[in-house]
Amino acid sequence: MKKLVAEFIGTLWLVLGGCGSAVLAAGYPELGIGFMGVALAFGLTVITMAYAIGHISGCHLNPAVSIGLWIGGRFDKKDLLPYIIAQVMGGIAGAAILYAIVSGKEGFNIGSFAANGYGEHSPDGYSMVSALITEVVMTFMFLIIILGATHSKAPKGMAGLAIGLGLTLIHLISIPVTNTSVNPARSTSQALFAQTDWAIPQLWLFWIAPVVGAVLAGLIYKYLSPEEKG
Amino acid sequence: MKKLVAEFIGTLWLVLGGCGSAVLAAGYPELGIGFMGVALAFGLTVITMAYAIGHISGCHLNPAVSIGLWIGGRFDKKDLLPYIIAQVMGGIAGAAILYAIVSGKEGFNIGSFAANGYGEHSPDGYSMVSALITEVVMTFMFLIIILGATHSKAPKGMAGLAIGLGLTLIHLISIPVTNTSVNPARSTSQALFAQTDWAIPQLWLFWIAPVVGAVLAGLIYKYLSPEEKG
Amino acid sequence: MKKLVAEFIGTLWLVLGGCGSAVLAAGYPELGIGFMGVALAFGLTVITMAYAIGHISGCHLNPAVSIGLWIGGRFDKKDLLPYIIAQVMGGIAGAAILYAIVSGKEGFNIGSFAANGYGEHSPDGYSMVSALITEVVMTFMFLIIILGATHSKAPKGMAGLAIGLGLTLIHLISIPVTNTSVNPARSTSQALFAQTDWAIPQLWLFWIAPVVGAVLAGLIYKYLSPEEKG
Amino acid sequence: MKKLVAEFIGTLWLVLGGCGSAVLAAGYPELGIGFMGVALAFGLTVITMAYAIGHISGCHLNPAVSIGLWIGGRFDKKDLLPYIIAQVMGGIAGAAILYAIVSGKEGFNIGSFAANGYGEHSPDGYSMVSALITEVVMTFMFLIIILGATHSKAPKGMAGLAIGLGLTLIHLISIPVTNTSVNPARSTSQALFAQTDWAIPQLWLFWIAPVVGAVLAGLIYKYLSPEEKG
Repeated sequence: MKKLVAEFIGTLWLVLGGCGSAVLAAGYPELGIGFMGVALAFGLTVITMAYAIGHISGCHLNPAVSIGLWIGGRFDKKDLLPYIIAQVMGGIAGAAILYAIVSGKEGFNIGSFAANGYGEHSPDGYSMVSALITEVVMTFMFLIIILGATHSKAPKGMAGLAIGLGLTLIHLISIPVTNTSVNPARSTSQALFAQTDWAIPQLWLFWIAPVVGAVLAGLIYKYLSPEEKG
Repeated sequence: MKKLVAEFIGTLWLVLGGCGSAVLAAGYPELGIGFMGVALAFGLTVITMAYAIGHISGCHLNPAVSIGLWIGGRFDKKDLLPYIIAQVMGGIAGAAILYAIVSGKEGFNIGSFAANGYGEHSPDGYSMVSALITEVVMTFMFLIIILGATHSKAPKGMAGLAIGLGLTLIHLISIPVTNTSVNPARSTSQALFAQTDWAIPQLWLFWIAPVVGAVLAGLIYKYLSPEEKG
Repeated sequence: MKKLVAEFIGTLWLVLGGCGSAVLAAGYPELGIGFMGVALAFGLTVITMAYAIGHISGCHLNPAVSIGLWIGGRFDKKDLLPYIIAQVMGGIAGAAILYAIVSGKEGFNIGSFAANGYGEHSPDGYSMVSALITEVVMTFMFLIIILGATHSKAPKGMAGLAIGLGLTLIHLISIPVTNTSVNPARSTSQALFAQTDWAIPQLWLFWIAPVVGAVLAGLIYKYLSPEEKG
Repeated sequence: MKKLVAEFIGTLWLVLGGCGSAVLAAGYPELGIGFMGVALAFGLTVITMAYAIGHISGCHLNPAVSIGLWIGGRFDKKDLLPYIIAQVMGGIAGAAILYAIVSGKEGFNIGSFAANGYGEHSPDGYSMVSALITEVVMTFMFLIIILGATHSKAPKGMAGLAIGLGLTLIHLISIPVTNTSVNPARSTSQALFAQTDWAIPQLWLFWIAPVVGAVLAGLIYKYLSPEEKG
C-alpha cells in the first residue's frame, strides 16, 4: 500500500510539475520558460521523485514504464494493475490541483490544458503517423535508458538523474510534434480536464504508442543486457 | 554556533543568489535569464550550499524546512528557534547586500524588489486562494523530496542535487502565481526592503502556507517512510 | 555483437535527439528551445546513453572518440572499424527516423536539415579556417574530458555526466561557427538527407578536423595522465 | 610540471568556453543563448575540467582560487606563483584561439570582447562600488563553496559538480553588473585582446576584489570547518 501511495504522489507531482509549468509559466510574456523550461520541469519531477520515493516504490510514475519493466523482467506482474491505477489516479489528482490554481486567475481559459494531440491538434501540425512514430520511438528510448541505468552494472545512484534527464531530452525533441506524452497517465489526466472536443478522442494514441514502444524496449534490452552482477 | 553561522551564510546566499538573479538579470533586454534562469539560480543556491555546509548545519536555509524536519523526526526541537532566527537574519543580510549593489545603478527603482504576492500583486494575477494552494502544495512536495532524498535508503551523496533541483522545479511552476516563496525567510527579507505598501501586509501567507505544507509533509512522510537502515 | 548494437542504438539516439531537437524545436515561434536547448539535447543524449549502455559498449557514439581512445591506449584497434561502421549506420538510422517524422508536417522543407557547414554555410558566416580551428580544438578538448573523466583516479560514476555536459558546452560555444560537429557520424547522417548541394562537398572537414583533434588529445593525455590505480 | 600543463589547458578551456560562448553565441538573433547560456558555459568548463584534470592539478583555473585555498590551508605556498602564471598564460592562450576564430567572420568587430568592466563599462551601468561589492562577495561565496565541497566530510565525487554549478550561479546573478569575473586570469585574457581603451585601466578591480573575497573566505572557512575525517 505504501508503494501505491508513493506512486500516487509521484505521478501527481509529474503532472502538476510538468503540465503545471507548461500551463502556468511557458508562455508568460518576455520572461516565460518556453518549451525548454517545460522540458526541464518534466525531467525534474522524475529526478526529485527518483531520489525521494525510488527506495519505496521504484518510482515508475507511468503505466508504460511499469509495463516495460515487466516485459524486461524487472517488475512483478501482480503489481502491474495496482501501479497503473495509482498512477492514473495520481495524474488526475495533479491535474485537479492545477485546475484549482488556474481557476483563480480572472479570465483564464483552460482551453486544451496541456493535452497531447496529433494532426491539427499537434502543436506544430504533425500528422498522426508522425505522432505515432515519435511516441513509439521516444518511449522505446526512455525504457532503454531506464532498463540500462538501473542495471546492476551501471554506476550506483546515478539512475534517477539519467532517467529524469532522459525525459527532459524527450521533451526537448518532441513537444512540437505531440506536446510529448510517453506517459498514458499524464495524457489521460489532461484530456479529462481540457475544454475541447478532441483531447479524449485522440487519447487512444497516447496509450497505444507508449505501450508499444515500452514493450519493444523490454524485449530488445533483454537481448542487449549483460549478465547481472553477483 | 558554527551551525548558526553556516545557516546564516547559506540563507544569505539563497536570497542574494535567487532574488539577486531575479532583480539584476531576469529582465535584461534581449539577453536576460527570465524565469528559467531565476528558477535555476534558486536551485543552485541550495545545491552549492548543500555540498558546502551540509556537513556543518544540514543546510536547511528555510524555517519551513526546519519545521518540516522537526515534525518528520529528523531535527531536534531545541535547535528550531535558533535556526529560524539565523535563517531570517541571513536572508535580511542577503537582501541588504543586494540592495547595496542595486543602489549603485543610476535611476534604479527598487519597486517591489523580489517580494512575494497574491491577488493583484501576483505576477500573473492569481487569487489569494490560488496562492495558498500553490504555496502549501509546493512546500509539501519540497519537504517530501527533502525527507525522502535524505533517508538512509536513498543513494548517498545525491540528496543535495535532488533537493536543489526540486527548488528549481518549484520555481519553474509557480513564479507566475506568487513569485514563489516556499520559504518565509526569503519572503521576509524582500518585504522589508521593497518600496511598496503591500509586501508586508501580504507576508502572513508566506509564513503560514509554507509551514502548513511542511507540517503535512512531515506527518505523511512518517507514514510512507521505510525503516531506516542499520 | 551486442557492443555494436549498443553503439548503433546510441548513435541513433545522439542524432535523433541532438539534430531532432534542432530541426523540430529550436526555432518554434516564441517558445522554441534555441541553441541553448539544442546544446542541452546533444549533451543529454550522451549522458542518458552513458548510463544506459556505457557498461555494454563504453558508449563512444562517435568515430573521433573511438579513434582518440585508441590513440590514448584505452581501446583495442581490432574493434575500431566495426565500431565506426556501427556508429555511422546508427547515425543514418537516426536521421532516417527524423526524416520520417518531419515528412509528416505539411509544407515542411528539409532544406539543410541539421548539416554542418563552413564559409557561406556556417550559420553565422565563419570561414573555413575558423571552422577547422573550431572543430579541431573542440574535439581535442572533448577527448581530454573523456580520457580524464574515465581515468581510474577520477570520481567513480561521474564520467557520463562530465562527458555529456562537455558536449553541451561545446555546442554552447560553436553552433554559430559550424553548427557543431566534433562527430563525423553525426555530420554524415545529416549530409545524406539534406536537400542542398553543399553538405556532402563540405563533409571532408567534419571527418578530418575531429579526427585530428582526437589524435592530438590522445597523444597529449598520455603525457599528462597520472599512473592508473592498482 | 604536469600540474602546470593541466592548469594551463584548464584555464584555456575556461576562457575559450566561457568567454567564447559569450562572444560567439550569446547574441545570435532569435536563437542565441543569452546570459543564461553563458552562465551555463562558464560552469561547464569547471565541471568538465574538474573531472578531467582534478586528479592531476586540483583544477583551480583561477588565481583567486589558488590564493583562497592557500589561505584556507589546502594549498602549498611554493606552488602558488607557478600556478598563477600557468593560469594567466592559459587564459591568454584561450583568448588567442577565440580571437583567431572570431577573425574568420567577415566584418566582425572585436569591440570589448568579453572584458569585465564597471561604471559606464558595466553591462547595465552599475557603479564601481557596486562592482567591488559584487566581485568581493561572489568570490567569497565561490571559495566557501570550493572549501566546503572539497572537505573530507562532504560527499565524495560531487565537489566538481557543486563548484561548477556555483560558477554558473555567480554568472546568473552578476553578468549585468561586471560581466562577471571572480577570476583575474579570465579578466586579464580579455582585457589584452579587447579593442577598447578602458579594459586594461579597469583591470585592477578584477584582481583586487576577487583576491580580497578569496582571502576572507579562506579565513572564515577555517573557523567554520569541522575537523577533517581520519
